[in-house]
Amino acid sequence: MLSKKIVKYIQSLSHKKFRDEEDVFIAEGPKIVSEFLLSQNIQCNFICAEKDWLFENEPLLKGLESQDIFETDEDGLKSISSQKSPNKVIGIFNKKPVVENPDLSGKISIMLDYLQDPGNMGTIIRIADWFAIENIICSSNTVDCYNPKVVQSTVGSLARVNILYTDLRSFILKNRNINIYATTLHGTPVFEMPKIKEGIILIGNEAKGVLGELLELSSHQITIPRYGHAESLNAAVATAIIISTFTTR
Amino acid sequence: MLSKKIVKYIQSLSHKKFRDEEDVFIAEGPKIVSEFLLSQNIQCNFICAEKDWLFENEPLLKGLESQDIFETDEDGLKSISSQKSPNKVIGIFNKKPVVENPDLSGKISIMLDYLQDPGNMGTIIRIADWFAIENIICSSNTVDCYNPKVVQSTVGSLARVNILYTDLRSFILKNRNINIYATTLHGTPVFEMPKIKEGIILIGNEAKGVLGELLELSSHQITIPRYGHAESLNAAVATAIIISTFTTR
Repeated sequence: MLSKKIVKYIQSLSHKKFRDEEDVFIAEGPKIVSEFLLSQNIQCNFICAEKDWLFENEPLLKGLESQDIFETDEDGLKSISSQKSPNKVIGIFNKKPVVENPDLSGKISIMLDYLQDPGNMGTIIRIADWFAIENIICSSNTVDCYNPKVVQSTVGSLARVNILYTDLRSFILKNRNINIYATTLHGTPVFEMPKIKEGIILIGNEAKGVLGELLELSSHQITIPRYGHAESLNAAVATAIIISTFTTR
Repeated sequence: MLSKKIVKYIQSLSHKKFRDEEDVFIAEGPKIVSEFLLSQNIQCNFICAEKDWLFENEPLLKGLESQDIFETDEDGLKSISSQKSPNKVIGIFNKKPVVENPDLSGKISIMLDYLQDPGNMGTIIRIADWFAIENIICSSNTVDCYNPKVVQSTVGSLARVNILYTDLRSFILKNRNINIYATTLHGTPVFEMPKIKEGIILIGNEAKGVLGELLELSSHQITIPRYGHAESLNAAVATAIIISTFTTR
């Protein structure tokens, strides 16, 4: 049985405010919880799981004290899950330490300004991890990378990418030596640009794109040319196209 | 007021079986309903909308008989909506006629085998529309492109792309002159392949990829090389990367 205190604590973590205060986040389901338990970058706080999962995954739990392992049943998990149907195990993990001043020289980085959709955020984190992009720099109003929907959709990639929330203007001014490539509707077609080995790809809000002040601070504006009639491309899809066609591999 | 008959009819259309029998689909919200009303390829069957929407959009409704326009209120829309909060208008449209034997010569086409996620399907339809890809050929067990979640996510692109459900094996055998490029985990890196102007890009199921028999019928296997550690790329993201790096624009 889970105590009322535990249930209330976990429920509170669906709010960013409490996740920030406690510096933790929730992960659900065998696949993603195992990934984080195996990760060297993310530390587990405690686990709530069904008996059979605990039995089958004993080796994964070696780093945990017994008071940090809570056995429960499906109804217990339901009371703390943010998913439609809970799946065997929920883990509370410490957030990964953030590198606040990453060295971006010689690297491709991603910058997100006011990205709102958790699905897009999760997909972009996976794209970064796939293409070995180490840093994603986000405006403070970009969706929280520890939002449960983001966590679930990134699988383990969240443990491997440095995701930094900051004031983008100050960040750009501090990193004046790195070129910023803003993705806009009326820039140079990306297929015509010479490929780059270093630079920050700036992606804007899903509806509004990259806004005025950041545009002015950008060194280039690039565009994915439209050959047909679709009204827009999904922000994560646009990120993938820019990274794969514009950066050197 | 909407009659019980209308409410029941619209509710039934959340099931593929009834959509197929009636050859219609549902679209919701001002943006997408307007797009379809303006489209020359899709015919409107009837509309249920709030009074103010009907007043403001009178010019869009010229093609409709008055008995095909139902005025209702928010509660009425709630009873027929598949969305969390209904948004002013719901339209019932005739499905677009399908070109069963499209001529694929000189064109890039997309083939989907057992794609399951409506979000991926919607995103791939938008990618096709963006890159002027005219045809998407789907296995019969691929998610229905008239599934409400797909319809909502494609905005108007659904009206502009020919989406054909068929037996892929027979289709490939009938189109032997067109090369099939299967996206797999261990093919030629796509960044090393010469770009193509004609061919079918084959994308498999999200979890299983392209399956045995279709692999054998493919002319090439191509892969998006992984530079980092992400477990996988989202199927729609993979489609976007292949289209943008591998096809000539």
